[in-house]
Amino acid sequence: MSAAAPQSDELVATMEALGSNARRAASALAHTSSEKKTAALHAAARAIDRRRADILSANATDLDAAKASGMSAAFLDRLRLDDSRLDGIIAALETVAELPEPVGTVTANWQRPNGLDISRVRTPLGVIGVIFESRPNVTADAGALCLKAGNAVILRGGSDSFHSSRAIHSCLVEGLSAAGLPQDAIQIVPTTDRAAVGEMLKGLNGTIDVIVPRGGKGLVGRVQAEARVPVFAHLEGLVHVYVDKSADLTKAVSVIANAKMRRTGICGAAETLLVHADVAATHLSPIIEALMEKGCEIRGDETVRSIIDTARPATDDDWRTEYEDAIISVKIVADIGEAIAHIAHYSSHHTEAIIAEDLVAVDKFFAEIDSAILMHNASTQFADGGEFGFGGEIGIATGKMHARGPVGVEQLTSFKYLVRGNGQTRP
Amino acid sequence: MSAAAPQSDELVATMEALGSNARRAASALAHTSSEKKTAALHAAARAIDRRRADILSANATDLDAAKASGMSAAFLDRLRLDDSRLDGIIAALETVAELPEPVGTVTANWQRPNGLDISRVRTPLGVIGVIFESRPNVTADAGALCLKAGNAVILRGGSDSFHSSRAIHSCLVEGLSAAGLPQDAIQIVPTTDRAAVGEMLKGLNGTIDVIVPRGGKGLVGRVQAEARVPVFAHLEGLVHVYVDKSADLTKAVSVIANAKMRRTGICGAAETLLVHADVAATHLSPIIEALMEKGCEIRGDETVRSIIDTARPATDDDWRTEYEDAIISVKIVADIGEAIAHIAHYSSHHTEAIIAEDLVAVDKFFAEIDSAILMHNASTQFADGGEFGFGGEIGIATGKMHARGPVGVEQLTSFKYLVRGNGQTRP
Repeated sequence: MSAAAPQSDELVATMEALGSNARRAASALAHTSSEKKTAALHAAARAIDRRRADILSANATDLDAAKASGMSAAFLDRLRLDDSRLDGIIAALETVAELPEPVGTVTANWQRPNGLDISRVRTPLGVIGVIFESRPNVTADAGALCLKAGNAVILRGGSDSFHSSRAIHSCLVEGLSAAGLPQDAIQIVPTTDRAAVGEMLKGLNGTIDVIVPRGGKGLVGRVQAEARVPVFAHLEGLVHVYVDKSADLTKAVSVIANAKMRRTGICGAAETLLVHADVAATHLSPIIEALMEKGCEIRGDETVRSIIDTARPATDDDWRTEYEDAIISVKIVADIGEAIAHIAHYSSHHTEAIIAEDLVAVDKFFAEIDSAILMHNASTQFADGGEFGFGGEIGIATGKMHARGPVGVEQLTSFKYLVRGNGQTRP
Repeated sequence: MSAAAPQSDELVATMEALGSNARRAASALAHTSSEKKTAALHAAARAIDRRRADILSANATDLDAAKASGMSAAFLDRLRLDDSRLDGIIAALETVAELPEPVGTVTANWQRPNGLDISRVRTPLGVIGVIFESRPNVTADAGALCLKAGNAVILRGGSDSFHSSRAIHSCLVEGLSAAGLPQDAIQIVPTTDRAAVGEMLKGLNGTIDVIVPRGGKGLVGRVQAEARVPVFAHLEGLVHVYVDKSADLTKAVSVIANAKMRRTGICGAAETLLVHADVAATHLSPIIEALMEKGCEIRGDETVRSIIDTARPATDDDWRTEYEDAIISVKIVADIGEAIAHIAHYSSHHTEAIIAEDLVAVDKFFAEIDSAILMHNASTQFADGGEFGFGGEIGIATGKMHARGPVGVEQLTSFKYLVRGNGQTRP
């Protein structure tokens, strides 16, 4: 580790100070103007642009250390920054800056017979803890989304991206200062000591309102198991696509090839294909051929293997596996009811899709499946805050409390009720 | 205790069975028809009407035990049922039955440039645990609200109302059966063993999605401290009313008298009055006189006591105290900023009110104070789901996650996204 790990008491004190600083910043941010937040994000984007050399040099330090410790090519790729990736970070900051102001938005308004006028308006949530791994861009994305929603944020990046994340963070702080906002609105944990994560999960004396983990199953699983505060996350995206007997073959082939193979490592990538028995003879081969053409391995049940002789056998483990790779498990189902039952049993409640022309089947699929996102005749890779029009996302949540599905700026807010009267008393 | 307390292992097994039964019922309820839920609630109301004698006899058993153990008159009053209170329970069931169906309601809908149509629709939350004290009517209110939102519920009433609650519960189950819904949709803990509460707080193997405690600070504090699942609750309602220098005196007098004295024991009752120094000479005496006329004790700061000579001195403890009684603490503030700072320091984030004619002051109060409900020129006793038009409430929440303010049927739901396409793939 390149940063000195403080002693345990020191670490606790450091972390608790981050918490109380964040709480103070959150109070100031809660009723700051939209203009200041927007200005801070634009200024941060300009700082990133101006300090490209510093950031790339910090990133080189991280990359050298990662290479020396023998990290994989895929890992180094996630960690690596270059001018084009910095352009992406700048563009993301500008996009979030220009999103509509969420705080103060009236989401409901009604009148009571006694003349009271009641509005529900968005407020910030408070303090958000974001724990992520090797991608340094999360520093900017998460910081920007939290700030736009009026929240203070405590960022804890992976130790492998420590220098890169700090360099980006210092540009965000420059943006805050330029706009006259408290620097503690966006803080970064100043140590690579892993015990810092444990402190955050305990909530830093009640100062953290919600934790958002971004990373692999190891990280998310630990956070979900240990956090004493609410968590917005998904442990996995075991995504199903069901081909109904009413499916249009052309749509099925292109949507499934995209859902599985566009990018195999993202949480919206399809992992299991369920095909109605009535169309197995007509639809299965063209779908599988399109997948295999793109390099996908097929694991099928007995019926599938009787049609696709190159398919390997699927075991019960396959129905439970998020491959995050060019592999798909395929099962023939007797009817939509069996498809829904299979999904109810194995789903991670992230995203599922139906390919169908029969709208009665679509309605049944939509009504009976309890996942955050359900798709009809569309690729499951659209399960993404940007694709939803949220202007970015801090992650995707599969829980049912507060945030569910893509977590964008609006999902990082709470609300309050404003009641306007003219002297009403309760009888 | 009148019911046999099972051995510890037995208790755990009993409670975990309630949890798995509830989870199964919740799956069935999630996509049941609105008609069946409505029919079940109407049938339950008819069962209560038909079985009045049984319920009153069960209540007599509870009342006898409570009298024998020397409970207070106030306690006995909360526990007591009579024909008029049964009428109230029946009316509440009918009201919830006739509320609009929440599940499936589209709360947002938009189109993306690529033609995808995205809707956000309400879904049930899942399984709700309700822990309450001596009021037997909570059995029906909580059961009805949870069912209407498509949730299964596990009710745990106070041991003092054990027989009354069970009698009411059996009418609810009769309603479920009559409508063809699973009886386990509304379960009641079949023992008075206090360890049952501890098991519920642990979440019954992940089967409970949220806990709602209804009762005094002892109960709510224990639930908030020990629950391993989300909690919708408020620990206290330390409600402030601020009289601005622009306040209309007539409105101030009637609103404050009502806010404090209509009912002193409810969570929306005012506890602290803050008066702008510029109107202390004109407004304070008439307000205080109206309160004293209704029997309210006044505790004031030095300036207040210089105007109201019968006021007792307020100590720092008074600013921290939810009296739930005919007592009010009164402080003179230099300006609205001092009022907001006082509220930020002492508030329980439940409900606060401003009496003012100056809308700039109202906007500042509404923007800068972070409480679930803010009122302008209206009694704080309107802080109630029924008064908000929610058709009832299971409680009021001061947390910022998911539910905040009155928790009615809509707040007992989650949501999912439905995405409709015509073959879109992600570039």
